[in-house]
Amino acid sequence: MVIDPPYLIFLGDVPDALAAKTGLGIVDWRPEWCIGQLRLEGCQADAGIPELSIDDAVKAGVKTMVVGAVNAGGVLPAHWISSIVAALDAGLNVATGLHTRLASIPEIKAAADKSGAKLHDVRFSDHRFDTGKGTKRPGLRCLTVGTDCSVGKKYTALALEREMRARGMDADFRATGQTGVFISGRGAAIDAVAADFISGAVEWIAPAADPGHWDLVEGQGSLFHPSFAGVSLGLLHGAQADAFVVCHEPTRTTMRGVKHALPSIGEVIDMTIAMGKLTNPAITCTGIAVNTRKLGEDEARALLDKLAGDYGVPATDPIRFGVEALVDRLAAIRPQD
Amino acid sequence: MVIDPPYLIFLGDVPDALAAKTGLGIVDWRPEWCIGQLRLEGCQADAGIPELSIDDAVKAGVKTMVVGAVNAGGVLPAHWISSIVAALDAGLNVATGLHTRLASIPEIKAAADKSGAKLHDVRFSDHRFDTGKGTKRPGLRCLTVGTDCSVGKKYTALALEREMRARGMDADFRATGQTGVFISGRGAAIDAVAADFISGAVEWIAPAADPGHWDLVEGQGSLFHPSFAGVSLGLLHGAQADAFVVCHEPTRTTMRGVKHALPSIGEVIDMTIAMGKLTNPAITCTGIAVNTRKLGEDEARALLDKLAGDYGVPATDPIRFGVEALVDRLAAIRPQD
Repeated sequence: MVIDPPYLIFLGDVPDALAAKTGLGIVDWRPEWCIGQLRLEGCQADAGIPELSIDDAVKAGVKTMVVGAVNAGGVLPAHWISSIVAALDAGLNVATGLHTRLASIPEIKAAADKSGAKLHDVRFSDHRFDTGKGTKRPGLRCLTVGTDCSVGKKYTALALEREMRARGMDADFRATGQTGVFISGRGAAIDAVAADFISGAVEWIAPAADPGHWDLVEGQGSLFHPSFAGVSLGLLHGAQADAFVVCHEPTRTTMRGVKHALPSIGEVIDMTIAMGKLTNPAITCTGIAVNTRKLGEDEARALLDKLAGDYGVPATDPIRFGVEALVDRLAAIRPQD
Repeated sequence: MVIDPPYLIFLGDVPDALAAKTGLGIVDWRPEWCIGQLRLEGCQADAGIPELSIDDAVKAGVKTMVVGAVNAGGVLPAHWISSIVAALDAGLNVATGLHTRLASIPEIKAAADKSGAKLHDVRFSDHRFDTGKGTKRPGLRCLTVGTDCSVGKKYTALALEREMRARGMDADFRATGQTGVFISGRGAAIDAVAADFISGAVEWIAPAADPGHWDLVEGQGSLFHPSFAGVSLGLLHGAQADAFVVCHEPTRTTMRGVKHALPSIGEVIDMTIAMGKLTNPAITCTGIAVNTRKLGEDEARALLDKLAGDYGVPATDPIRFGVEALVDRLAAIRPQD
């Protein structure tokens, strides 16, 4: 899935910022792609970028209108359809992460057929991937892994990309989830790919690159999550990770959606190396990223110091304390022959 | 996917027995479900069961015509369509494992719509599964795992079922691949399930059962196969295996379709336990099943003796020497509290 920037961010008339999380995330991580926002009357979310009509957006060079908001249930509200049709009529592509396929709505399909614009449903995966080959490809890759779902894997990968680029390093975030696909303009929602093609899809998402180039691959799930470990393992094998960062949320007592306790960070490090060496024998843990939001600053610093000591790698909260130490460690890795 | 037996096995006009492998496999493992075969002029495969016309099949109580043959490319030959339409017109359901969806062929869709008969495309998975919960459910489960793909995992699971049933044990083969689905009349091609639902699908395939009941779960791929390990791990977690049998082909030097060497049987045992204990802490290896077809009898026996000694579990070739020792070991396992 390749989505052409720049974007017009459609926020509809959602009641709060949470419902516009996807749109706000895109603006946060790719401000240079977000020319403006389109909001309907009553919208309570604001991305803080210029208000643009569809005509103005076309004049400003926008290629794709991204539906960056979601209403309850993830379906497309009927009163958003006319905005989508208008965007298509004006020649813009339209992308959403909703549960409804755009082409399943007759007016939208007709408008897209007429204008030739592209419809992107990032929650679905229609691309036919090959099965993974496991053959080592050039380029360096860092995967964010987790002790659980929703522990900051996407955020950490994006923060690493930002810091690497600020240092002049050649680095790209690689998306494996729907919000990430909007942010990178490319990728696939790996959890929607047919099971046989998980690692093959990742080989496509993070392809061969220059030997010194870094891919920061967005992780999914956890090798220890009973619902999603298969996704995590296929992702690890497909990424052929040279390095990985373990993401963790220290106050959680059970894994998301199930009754299982979280694994320790040490268990995640050991199992990631044990499984990951199948496609990259040089795999190594280069850091720990902890979401310390629920801890006081002293408590957070004490925890990070302890983890760094226990595991011999830098430990940080990417939001609170930045990722400089994580990038220092990655920058020391040299391409293999 | 639930397919209603008994079956009429359609073999078309394939040029050899290999092209009718699926149909012959069904007859081999479920003779009581296979009332007859329907062959077109020139067919070079023969399942050795009565030739039945569609009308005779209906009279004999057949519920489903299974297309048990495949031509090169896995597509549906145009000259098979009239037989399928005739079966539907007579009220039979039709099931295939071809790459072509039956309903994508207008004559077939029209006939099914008219008669109300069901179309089963076992290669596709349209069922919406839940995500896996990982909560321990009652019943005993044995999973066949492998050092590679295509090393006898389906055959071993079926042989275990046959031997258990012969002993009066309460046991069911559970299918995770398309031929297996025909044989068990139920299951899903797990490799076609969306990645997020692998373990959830297996929780559906091998559901809660009486405490002493055995599910013999057909394994897929290998935890060490760089293309398919994600499938294998989701399958392991979803099966909540109490026991597993390692299947192996001793003359293979690289894994199927890739350049990687095979893991040792010991590595497979250790990793299966390390990962499997997440959803069943009592998981244990109860045997080794080796395909010794390419070895002489003395050589085969010597290898099996050595493996049994090395790993402390029975080792056999299910085809050559049966699975009695494997079932002895399983029969000694008692339901957990």
